[in-house]
Amino acid sequence: MALTMGEPAGIGGEITLKAWTHHAGLDPFFVIDDPDRLKELASRIGLDVSIQTIETPLEATKIFARALPVLPVGRVAPLPAPVVAGRPDTANAKAVIASIETAVRLVLDGEASSVVTNPIHKQALYEASFPHPGHTEFLASLAGIDTPPIMMLAADELKVVPVTIHQSLRDAINSLDTGAITQAGLITQAALRQDFGIARPRLAIAGLNPHAGEGGAMGSEELQIIAPAVEALREAGIDASGPIAPDALFTARARESYDAAICMYHDQALIPIKAIAFEHAVNVTLGLPFVRASPDHGTALDIAGTFEADESSLLAALKMAGAMSRSRATAMDA
Amino acid sequence: MALTMGEPAGIGGEITLKAWTHHAGLDPFFVIDDPDRLKELASRIGLDVSIQTIETPLEATKIFARALPVLPVGRVAPLPAPVVAGRPDTANAKAVIASIETAVRLVLDGEASSVVTNPIHKQALYEASFPHPGHTEFLASLAGIDTPPIMMLAADELKVVPVTIHQSLRDAINSLDTGAITQAGLITQAALRQDFGIARPRLAIAGLNPHAGEGGAMGSEELQIIAPAVEALREAGIDASGPIAPDALFTARARESYDAAICMYHDQALIPIKAIAFEHAVNVTLGLPFVRASPDHGTALDIAGTFEADESSLLAALKMAGAMSRSRATAMDA
Repeated sequence: MALTMGEPAGIGGEITLKAWTHHAGLDPFFVIDDPDRLKELASRIGLDVSIQTIETPLEATKIFARALPVLPVGRVAPLPAPVVAGRPDTANAKAVIASIETAVRLVLDGEASSVVTNPIHKQALYEASFPHPGHTEFLASLAGIDTPPIMMLAADELKVVPVTIHQSLRDAINSLDTGAITQAGLITQAALRQDFGIARPRLAIAGLNPHAGEGGAMGSEELQIIAPAVEALREAGIDASGPIAPDALFTARARESYDAAICMYHDQALIPIKAIAFEHAVNVTLGLPFVRASPDHGTALDIAGTFEADESSLLAALKMAGAMSRSRATAMDA
Repeated sequence: MALTMGEPAGIGGEITLKAWTHHAGLDPFFVIDDPDRLKELASRIGLDVSIQTIETPLEATKIFARALPVLPVGRVAPLPAPVVAGRPDTANAKAVIASIETAVRLVLDGEASSVVTNPIHKQALYEASFPHPGHTEFLASLAGIDTPPIMMLAADELKVVPVTIHQSLRDAINSLDTGAITQAGLITQAALRQDFGIARPRLAIAGLNPHAGEGGAMGSEELQIIAPAVEALREAGIDASGPIAPDALFTARARESYDAAICMYHDQALIPIKAIAFEHAVNVTLGLPFVRASPDHGTALDIAGTFEADESSLLAALKMAGAMSRSRATAMDA
């Protein structure tokens, strides 16, 4: 598995080092980073992590049990500017980008099984003329994908897919669209089969309004926009139910009745998963030609360098990427 | 504590009988109902519950340990129409209403410490010319209250107060109002002190948009409507924080930082509490001149008569009403 560096002024390096200490329970991974800066970081944290520079991904498997394998590729290492915790430097933006480009090239070439990404600081990249709105769009562009990928937040207890993401709640309502909901359902269903090994995935489609609109008394989006998407998914042979009253969808009992919930807006998806599984929820990108997972948090510039950062979510992302890659390999063989 | 009958065709009777079987852990309560229909119900369920008719609330305390005390008042008993599980009969609506009226009269007269209400079926009451939009509005009218009471969903893990309730998400956004948010904060703070015994309550005020609008980039309601309410609450000397990113507000760690979350819309409040505490969340009405709690579910007409109904939420409501009444009595004495 290829792990990207992410923003070096953030917590990426710290959690990468900490995550490797759990190597006994992980599939082998390597990080595309600057070996010297990681060595220095490890000694400052006081973590007994041996860092070993590798030249090809294949070497990672051999040494993973005794050292963190670091692939210093192209412009990534050494970093042009000194890393100051909490203060992203645009001079290092090209290295951040190159780490991601390398990871995608390796996974597309079959030299890595999946991509796990450390968080980036978009502002620092924009200042270096990064032309993509975000991390995921950049990955889609590198993969040559036209259909926008979708985001899934995944934990053992719950998997959610928001159909709209980073827009105001009002704009999210205005942009709800039968086609987009249907498309999210189709991509989710394919991913649950291929990457999660679920033979016949059950999708629950959330309503938008309280009580899913109560038959039109509290909002018409269920009848006009969401129900037709549920119908389209069913016609495609998918086990889809809904629109379901949002507050009834995430009770412990309800969660047993589906494999993923398709949600209408950002917080409808993120409130329940963070309430239930904050420490181990993983951000998974569906619809890319490779497995991609990332921790469910940002660069945490405010605590970078204090070494308090919790590696749980990165660890969960590495575990999930491993399991998804194995499931996908099995699906491909079958 | 006075417990109302609720819709007799619903699960109210069943869960009342089941709740009494846990009497060892409860403050004494009596139900205002038809003793004969409860006796018949108990024998049909096969529950060994002794039913004893009482003439005054005071008798309830004496017999509570050995029998469920039932106060048959006025038009409540015997019920005019036979009760058919799952099929509300408008002929019994007057009895449903009288049970509530009696409970409020007794609590206002000091003969009961609090009111716990079983769920009603509004449609059956509307057909009998019930002029109030809902249960809570009826209670407010009986109490002669002008300021609308507010709803809190309460569990040990989390307390939430939705500022808007039963309207479409679009209407909820349009009706967000600094005054209403401030008022909800003030009532909540008073209730946390008086009824929950928290000397200096901490309120967390949720944002509306993803990431609480990110400084206006994803919605302006935080800056224009919500932040001024937080400011007004602080000026009133209240420990209020916000607007907080909604998805960050309900993580296990965040929940330790406040006593109640003031939420902007129905599902922002109900999704997390039902995800975390479905079985034991209680609906508490704040701003009435007496303690009122109710189970966090409806009449469940679909399962009434199958005796599968779970009494957990009613039991939690009885326990919370007991604790709140004792806290309020202490506050009054002080």
